[in-house]
Amino acid sequence: MERAKIEVCYSPALFPYYENRDAVVVVTDILRASSAIVTAFMNGVHRIIPVGTLDEARAYKEKGYMVAAERDGIVRDFADFGNSPFNFTPERVKDKEIVYSTTNGTQAIHQASTGRQVLIGAWLNLSALVRHIRSEGSDLLVLCAGWKNKFNLEDTLFAGALAQRVLEGEGHDTICDATLGAIDLYEAASQDMMGYIEKVAQRHRLRKNNLDDVIGYCHEVDRTGLIPVLEGNSLVLLKDHK
Amino acid sequence: MERAKIEVCYSPALFPYYENRDAVVVVTDILRASSAIVTAFMNGVHRIIPVGTLDEARAYKEKGYMVAAERDGIVRDFADFGNSPFNFTPERVKDKEIVYSTTNGTQAIHQASTGRQVLIGAWLNLSALVRHIRSEGSDLLVLCAGWKNKFNLEDTLFAGALAQRVLEGEGHDTICDATLGAIDLYEAASQDMMGYIEKVAQRHRLRKNNLDDVIGYCHEVDRTGLIPVLEGNSLVLLKDHK
Repeated sequence: MERAKIEVCYSPALFPYYENRDAVVVVTDILRASSAIVTAFMNGVHRIIPVGTLDEARAYKEKGYMVAAERDGIVRDFADFGNSPFNFTPERVKDKEIVYSTTNGTQAIHQASTGRQVLIGAWLNLSALVRHIRSEGSDLLVLCAGWKNKFNLEDTLFAGALAQRVLEGEGHDTICDATLGAIDLYEAASQDMMGYIEKVAQRHRLRKNNLDDVIGYCHEVDRTGLIPVLEGNSLVLLKDHK
Repeated sequence: MERAKIEVCYSPALFPYYENRDAVVVVTDILRASSAIVTAFMNGVHRIIPVGTLDEARAYKEKGYMVAAERDGIVRDFADFGNSPFNFTPERVKDKEIVYSTTNGTQAIHQASTGRQVLIGAWLNLSALVRHIRSEGSDLLVLCAGWKNKFNLEDTLFAGALAQRVLEGEGHDTICDATLGAIDLYEAASQDMMGYIEKVAQRHRLRKNNLDDVIGYCHEVDRTGLIPVLEGNSLVLLKDHK
């Protein structure tokens, strides 16, 4: 039996070369969009509408929506709150519909929508993703949000961990250099993940803005079994996954 | 004193996000274009005209030029020879002007031409590059030709080795995640480089076409002190470097 394939795309700008309509696409933006989205669902959000531009976010705000919006880690003045997972508290988000726009992550979600299914991936829901992808048995494409179309390490390490765990099943294989590279980087980092994260560029950007309090939390593994999935233009909870 | 910076760009499609007019750009396409170009200069070629499209290559052929041209590892029917370094023998190339077009490498060279200087890099001339870049003291951008705009491992390992050696001097620094990743992959691979190369996708492509005889040669370090440099539209030998 032919195995399903795994590929990793290091930047939204490379997506056209990896695009695969048969693939489950896992979008990841570890620091911080995908970790924040998973957290919002852990805290009971009903629906998240990811928007690419600040203009769209502002238009939703004017229609009365609650809006989370940032650029380069800074909350926008018209927004109710920013991009930190710690902002998405149960008090704010439970049973709500929230509009969300970030520097890298939300554009990547829209771009991924040509895949057969678009999921949001973070360390927080790693094992749930692995179980779902293995039981689906279809191709897997991990789309790293990166930083302004540049490669970043924190998304790549997550992609490597996800690919490695999916490959431990019988159903998947890879000949993708980006996947092999991500796995090797994850293996090099996994002895001391927080020490490794210390050197990545986004760590320094967040520290400069006093936003680095979330880094430990964003690297906690398996805090939840929940998986956000794109349904039309918004993210909802994936139902009935094993 | 502020140090010059090092960045690595994993794909020609990402070049717009890394572009730096102050940088020396080292273009690399280890299997096989940059290794072949360096070999041609080792064997006395006078000048190489890299062209992006097969139509341009064919037009030069009709004007009487000697042409090396391939796509996906296969020599084109109008060409005199293909992309293997072993084709660029002294008998064929000494004191000649040669037109060259490949799947990935030659387009990358043209793209890089917005840099202050464009050099061709391979394992064959690694230490010469390191000496030149350190003595120039300007920013370094390594442009990996990749495979049809996808990330590839063999170019990344070379980029990591080059960055690591340049960083050993006093004049350069990096906060670029792609550079840090390339260095870590190089370190992981360097214990057993040929074993590592065994798994890369291009290795399998070349083997399928019986073109894998050059892989050992393309990973030989410091066979020459020569550096090809882009001058106008063609590659010539860099003069007077230390």
